[in-house]
Parts: sequence; C-alpha cells; structure tokens
Amino acid sequence: MRGKQAKRGKLVVLVLTTSVLLSYALLADTFAEIDASLDSAIVTVESGKIRGYVEDGIYVFRGIPYAKATRFMLPEKVERWDGVLDTRVYGECCPTPPIEAVFDPVELVIPHVYWPQNENCLFLNIWTPGIEDGRKRPVMVWLHGGGFSTGSSIEQKAYDGKNLSENGDVVVVSINHRLNVLGFLDLSAYGEKYRYSGNVGMADIVAALEWIKSNIEHFGGDPENITLFGQSGGGGKILTLMAMPAAKGLFQKAIVQSGLFSTFSPVLPQNISRRVAALTLENLGVSPTEVDDLQSIPYQTLLTAASKAQAQVAEETGQRVSWAPVLDGEYITVNVGMETSPLSRDVPVMLGTTFGEMDANLFAGFGKNSWSPEEIAARMADKYGDKAEAIAQAFRKAYPRKPLVDALFIDTTGRPATLAWARLKCQDPAPVYVYIFAYEIPVNGGMVAFHCAEIPFVFHNTDLVPMATGGGVDAFIMAEVVSRAWVNFARYGDPNHDLLPEWPAFTIKNGATMVFDKTSWVGYEHDDELYNLLSTK
Amino acid sequence: MRGKQAKRGKLVVLVLTTSVLLSYALLADTFAEIDASLDSAIVTVESGKIRGYVEDGIYVFRGIPYAKATRFMLPEKVERWDGVLDTRVYGECCPTPPIEAVFDPVELVIPHVYWPQNENCLFLNIWTPGIEDGRKRPVMVWLHGGGFSTGSSIEQKAYDGKNLSENGDVVVVSINHRLNVLGFLDLSAYGEKYRYSGNVGMADIVAALEWIKSNIEHFGGDPENITLFGQSGGGGKILTLMAMPAAKGLFQKAIVQSGLFSTFSPVLPQNISRRVAALTLENLGVSPTEVDDLQSIPYQTLLTAASKAQAQVAEETGQRVSWAPVLDGEYITVNVGMETSPLSRDVPVMLGTTFGEMDANLFAGFGKNSWSPEEIAARMADKYGDKAEAIAQAFRKAYPRKPLVDALFIDTTGRPATLAWARLKCQDPAPVYVYIFAYEIPVNGGMVAFHCAEIPFVFHNTDLVPMATGGGVDAFIMAEVVSRAWVNFARYGDPNHDLLPEWPAFTIKNGATMVFDKTSWVGYEHDDELYNLLSTK
Repeated sequence: MRGKQAKRGKLVVLVLTTSVLLSYALLADTFAEIDASLDSAIVTVESGKIRGYVEDGIYVFRGIPYAKATRFMLPEKVERWDGVLDTRVYGECCPTPPIEAVFDPVELVIPHVYWPQNENCLFLNIWTPGIEDGRKRPVMVWLHGGGFSTGSSIEQKAYDGKNLSENGDVVVVSINHRLNVLGFLDLSAYGEKYRYSGNVGMADIVAALEWIKSNIEHFGGDPENITLFGQSGGGGKILTLMAMPAAKGLFQKAIVQSGLFSTFSPVLPQNISRRVAALTLENLGVSPTEVDDLQSIPYQTLLTAASKAQAQVAEETGQRVSWAPVLDGEYITVNVGMETSPLSRDVPVMLGTTFGEMDANLFAGFGKNSWSPEEIAARMADKYGDKAEAIAQAFRKAYPRKPLVDALFIDTTGRPATLAWARLKCQDPAPVYVYIFAYEIPVNGGMVAFHCAEIPFVFHNTDLVPMATGGGVDAFIMAEVVSRAWVNFARYGDPNHDLLPEWPAFTIKNGATMVFDKTSWVGYEHDDELYNLLSTK
Repeated sequence: MRGKQAKRGKLVVLVLTTSVLLSYALLADTFAEIDASLDSAIVTVESGKIRGYVEDGIYVFRGIPYAKATRFMLPEKVERWDGVLDTRVYGECCPTPPIEAVFDPVELVIPHVYWPQNENCLFLNIWTPGIEDGRKRPVMVWLHGGGFSTGSSIEQKAYDGKNLSENGDVVVVSINHRLNVLGFLDLSAYGEKYRYSGNVGMADIVAALEWIKSNIEHFGGDPENITLFGQSGGGGKILTLMAMPAAKGLFQKAIVQSGLFSTFSPVLPQNISRRVAALTLENLGVSPTEVDDLQSIPYQTLLTAASKAQAQVAEETGQRVSWAPVLDGEYITVNVGMETSPLSRDVPVMLGTTFGEMDANLFAGFGKNSWSPEEIAARMADKYGDKAEAIAQAFRKAYPRKPLVDALFIDTTGRPATLAWARLKCQDPAPVYVYIFAYEIPVNGGMVAFHCAEIPFVFHNTDLVPMATGGGVDAFIMAEVVSRAWVNFARYGDPNHDLLPEWPAFTIKNGATMVFDKTSWVGYEHDDELYNLLSTK
C-alpha cells in the first residue's frame, strides 16, 4: 500500500513537474528574449568587424554589405572598414516599380514590408544559433520572389529567418540584389564595359554566394553545405544559377519553390534583351555613343523608358517581355527551365508547386466550400467547357480527399512545367524530390493553397502571418512537417523525416510526388491523367 | 487517513487541472486566431458599408475614409459608396520628408513601418471587441507623434490597437491626417479660400473626431466617452484641440504623453506662419496672384521650397521654425502649451513624461550600469559643471532607488514644461493626473526610459517590440500596470487601479506625480529641488 502511494506520489510529482515545465516553456516561448548590447554578437568578416544582436538565442545580423554596386557594372568588393560596423538594421533594397496592390486584400494575406530603396543595395542578412563555435551547420540561402523585377529579402513578413534557424539548427541567409532595369538591362552591344550588364543582378547573387562561402564559418555555418531555396522568381534565380559557370561550386543543393511555369521563361534570348536596350536608348533620346549618359539618368526616368521599350518589343514579337537574365552563351549558357545544365549534375534538387498557384487567386474562391453542387457544376462547365465532366472524374481520382470544388482552382501552369523539368533533371546522378503543397488554408472558410502559400510554413513563421496560414496549432504542426523536410534536405540531401510517409526520389518511372496536406501522402503519377486533360482543354 | 488522502487527491486534481488549463490558455494565446471571411465584420457607417476582419476576437477595420482632402482646403465629406468597401488594409499615409534614420540603431529599438503615401490620406483605423452589440465602451483615439511634420497612424509597430482593445475592453481608433507643408502652410494672406490652410491638418483631426462621434456606436463605442491620447507631436495635437472651438464637445478626456517641452511650442504665431508662406512662394517663383498654381506643384518641389523658407525665417528671427498649427485667433485662440483654454475646463487630463526623454538618446548610455564611480563623476562634471555635486545630491533625494548614473540621462526639458502646464490646468474644475514613466528598459544592459519608451506599454504591445521593452514577463507585467491606468482614465476619468499605490490628482499644493517603475510610487514635489538646479545649470 505504501509502495503504491509512493508510486502514485511520484507520478503526481512527475505529471505536475511536466505540466509546470510545459507551462513555463510555453510562457517563455510566448515572450521574446533579446540582447542587443554592443558586444553580444560581434563577428570579424573579411572586410572588418560587424555587430549583430541576439533574439531568443538566435544571432541576428541585418544589412551586411557583401559587395558594392555601380550602375550596370559587375559588383565590386566592399572596402575594409575600421571599428565595428553596425549590422542590426536591414540594408536598403533595390528600387522597384511602384506596387499597385496596397489596397488589394491580398495585402491582408501576404503583408508587404516597405523599406527605403537605393541602387547600392547589396546587403545580406544572417540568422544563426551560434557564432565562432566551430559548428558546421547547414546553410540555407533564401532568394526572394518578385520575378527579376521586384521584391526584396524582407518583402514578405514570413521571410524572417529566426524561427527556421532556431527550429532547424541551421544558418539562414537572405539577400538583396539588383533587379529590373538596374539588374538586367543588356547594354552589351555598346561596348566591352557593358558586356555583363544584362546579368549584373545574377552576378550580385554570385558575389553574395562567394561572400557566404568565405565567411559563413564565423557564423557557425558549413561553407561546404550550402542550400539555395527560393520561391517564384527566387526559384527562377536558382535554376539560372545552376546553369552559370560563375556559380559553380558555390552551393551544393537547391530547392526550387514554384519557380517553373509554362507561361514564363527565366531567361531572355539576347536578341530580345538587346532590342529592349536599343529601344530604351531611343526612348531616352540617347545615342549609342552616349550610352555612358545612362549612368546619371534618374532611376524613374530610366525605368519608364525601359518599361516602354519592353512593351514595344512585346508588340514587335507578340510575346510578353519581362526582366530576366540574358542567355548570352557566356555568363549563362543554357535555356534555363527548358534544359538542365551539366554544371549541376551533382546538385540534388527539391522542387514543387502549390496546389493552386496562379489559378487560386486568393479571394476568388471565397465561400467555395458552401457552394451547391449545381453552382460548382456550372462553374466547371464555364471554366473547362466540354472537358468539365472528364476533368471532374480525373480530379476525383487524383485527389479523392479533396472536394470537387477545388478542381476549379487547381494550378494549370506550374505543375506541368515542374514535372517536365524534373523528368530531365532526374536523369542526372543527384536525386530529385518533387512536391505539391496542397494544404487548405483554413481562413475565410477555406482557401486553396495559392502562389506563395507554402512560404510561412517553410520558415516556421505561420503565426507571423495568421491570415495566410490560419495560425494556431494546426498551422504550427503543418509548419513542423514542411519545415523539417526543407531542413533535412539541406542537411542530408534527403527531405525524409518521421512525420512524413516514405518519400522516394522522383524518377521517370515512379513519378513520385509528396503531397503536403493535413495528412501528407505520396502520389505516383497520381495526376498525370488530370493534367493531360487540363493541358488540352 | 482516507479523508486526508481524498483531500490530497482533490488538491492534486485541482492543481493539475489548473496547470493544464494554464498551459492551454498560454498555448491558445501563443497563436493568433483570425477570421477574415467576407461577412464576419460588416458595419454600415454614414457613407456606406465597410468590411473589416476579426483577429483574436477583436474586430479590426483599417483605412476607413473619414473625409476627403484637397490640397490646402478644409476636409470634405466622403461621397457615399455602393456595395461593401473593403477596409481590411491600412490607408495611405501623408507624404513626409524623407526619413534619415534608416541605418540608425534607433530603428532597431523603434521599428519604423513604411507605407505608401498620398495627399488624400484621411483614413482611420478601429479595433473593437464588438460591433453593433449595444455596448458603450470607452473610445480611445490615438494621435501619432512626429511633430506636425512626420509620422502616421501606423508608423510605429507598437501603435497596433488590438491588444489594448482586448485587454481594456475599449474601442481604439487611430488616425492619419495631413502634415508638414500639406497640413500647415498658411496661405491665408492670399485670399478667403485659403483662410484655414495653415490649420487644415488640425481640421482633418476634427473631421475624424466628428466621424467618430457619429459612427462609433456601430463599433460598440460610447460617442459620449471619447478620450484622446497621443505622444510627442500627438500630445501637441491634443493640447491644440483643447483650445479649438471646432473641437469642443468632440472628446471628453485627454492624455498628453510627452507633449510639452520647454524647447518647443505647439503653435506658430501668424506673423511667422505667413512669412514662411511668403518665402515659399518666392522660392517657387510664384507671385501672390498666382497662388492657385501651388495646387499643381509636385509635393517634393513644394516641400523643398517650404523647408528652405522655414530655414530663412529661422535665420531672420533667430528661432527654430517647425511645422505647427497657426495661432490665427479664430481657429486657434490660445497660445497652446503656455496657456490653458476655457474651452476645456471640464476635460480631465492625464499628462506626463518619460524619465529620460530627449536626454536619454537610447544608445548613448550603453553600458552605463557598469561605469565606475570615477567615470560617472567625470561625466557629471562634464555635463553639469560646478552644479554636478548639488545635482547628484538632489538626484539621490529625488530617486533614492535609481543609480546615480541615471542623473546623466534625466529629462531636462519635458518635465519642467509639463509641470508648468499642469499647475495652470489644475486650476480648472476637472482633475489633472501627472506621471513620469521611469521604468528602466532591461535591454543592452539597461536603458533609461527614452522619448517614446512608454508607448508599447500603453498599447500592451511589449512583445511586438522586444528591443524597446525587454519583452518577456517583466515587460508584460509593466504593460499591465501602465495600460490599466490609461484604460481606467479613459473609462472613469481616474487612472487608479489595484496594481498602483493611491494616485491623487495633481494640485499646486501636493505636486503629486505617479512614478511608473518596477515598483511604482507617488512623488510629492519629489524632484522640485532637482529641477531647480537643472533649470539654472
């Protein structure tokens, strides 16, 4: 009897202790802990000393200058500085065309961070669990989206690297670099000094990767285990880097999130890029021999002339012309997105799309889950014409657990391009992992996973943007599932972990895709029939 | 024996239950809950329907248009709209001079929210626990700082009203209005239509208060219990509104945070404001008969000319000239800050300063708590000359629990102006409460409470800006102490609550000041001797 009592007593103590500790842990986690004193996070990098700060045990450095930008020129080394450079505030971002979306409810879901802009925008940010500790953690380098035209390393709230660094015990780096007319105006026809001007935005990223390789050891990172991850335009940048001699050896793995679309090519043929430059000069009234005058033209004037030139070329060619790196046969040698490059045969790649991408335009499907079968049928007929019934059947086969209404919002342009590229890439020795992020966002009665939807889950920042994730415990758990796959891929080149079913590398034969969802599952060519129908609709 | 066991069993169950509930409550609180569906927060206001959303049980409306601005003209009513206006994203802010501080570590402590700007910036935001629920909660209207020149309703992260609304069961409103040359260029010499142009920025606030009075009942607020609160320039705006016939009856109580300084007057004499306008015209090459041309001059050009004019007038008069409302004897009738107005005899006022204000410039005192007595003595001598020893003694008497080093960072310009005004105001029938926010911010080895330091505590947002508060449980508790005083003052006209010692209204006789600190206490003329010395140094 006494034994039983003692046992029960011990159990009670254990349960109580656990419970109290749990409370405490949760409480501790509720509140941020911060140390920004002058000497808590000082690191010596190649150009001098820098000062960061510590938040929740993570060392944070913002706005480290990794290179210096002169308009249209390749990035240069930063000059050495004396004393300690304060790198606790983000650096300026590249000037961009004005954002129109401020009053759009999309802003509500994906809050935009505005920040001062400057042409000299070559700054990077680092989050790490340790400095100068001799540890060699995987390094994850984030390349932001916004095509090659807009965005920044801090444009979306969910880009904050602290939680990913903390949860994954990894070093997270994010980068600003030149964009749009500043990063990709191809003046190569006007003299040797402008030879690379159509690719300086990419050259900036190369400079950042060189900086990371040379310095990341001071931040507890492994210079030999660097994983690029990026979304949309960021994915396009990674695909491009994989085909660039200058970037060879500067990274070991790559995660391409929603970076391939059948409607968009990450590179421009040089005849197009040079035509844009020629018309830009013409619009500015600058003759080819006066091309140096472009150095001093105000950014807005330059951008306006170049945007007009893009529209003119689009009219001439009948094709949309966006800012993009230039396929010059030297700096970039491969028609990125359509081909793979021998330069990255040994680079394992994880790539995927969201369930809805551009077809799930956030608020279009408001209330979708309460639409009647008749309304859904009518909309299916409206969208898919005489293929509607066949698509409905194929959708039910591909996604037996999704409601039929989601067939109205399924991605039609990202998945085919992604699969096509995966089929090429999987012929290289390094493995390829393919995913679809299909988690329904439980906000506004349910939203199909839109373009960008996976980002807060990858960064474990679901609670920073509750409107994009639903917030709460469910989103937190989903973040754990997704984020761990990203971290394991970065650490081991294999995304598998305990919370997922076995995820085999993609082959032409197995067509394996991890479908991230409330219950994640692996599909084997599960949507081939569906996409055959969608592509011929 | 069995009884004891049963009792112990019950106790265990109780403790366990409490503990689990506590865990759950904390967990629930860790994660945001959000509902932004199309119909969760629709309210009909005077101009039409608006759509907000719900976060953590608080209804949020952002960017409600309360009036329409044409340059230099009094604000006009907004036109009625059909359908539902989306008010879930913040409205544009008033254009401002560029911010220089982006790379300053101050940015780290007080993060700046950048946002698109537009001259038509007359938007307000509302946070409330209920809509159309028949409840009449106190309404707290926040007026932002930045003098009369910069800032916005969302400039500081800590301005978010959700937590204050939730914790205090109050309706929180914040306002954008016109600033700088758009709000305060006095063109009254050039024709009747410009009669009020020097005060349209204040007229905007009046229009907002009229809107609030007419519409706030729909948001569960009491139109007869409206409290203005504002900091720095926001405090100056409130002092001005208290002297404006147009604002009479539009608010019942006022909280002036760090709004009075001996170095700054919230209003401009009209000879100064008209001189600034005359030189602005001259700088632009616009003759007095062409004054209408100012309507179409780009903002930057106008601002540059007007800023130059301010500098010219400063040189002419030997006095700093800032943007400020115009003492025109009609719209504004009292030399605000130096006098009180009979218009607000019945308005209870709470006002105060931070311990350090402008003398505690954040990072200047880095490591202060580890300075040696010799170093402190040397700095005291350097700052206070032959008064150093007397000031040290008076400081020890005034603040026996503060380290002497803090005497180096004590506010010298806010407290004297605040006390002088309180001595005038307390002669009115309505009570006056005076405070000093003296809590040391436990970041960077300890920072004396700087200008703006109390804001996150007032808004219960300490964890949104951990670098400005220390975050964690201590900051949370301090927020509870401060915020509750603000809420009680708004609700009852009396800030007293259980976590504070008895706080009597200020009289010339008692000189009572609540010193908010880790342990808050009431000083009675506690620092008179100290300030006598500081004022004659």
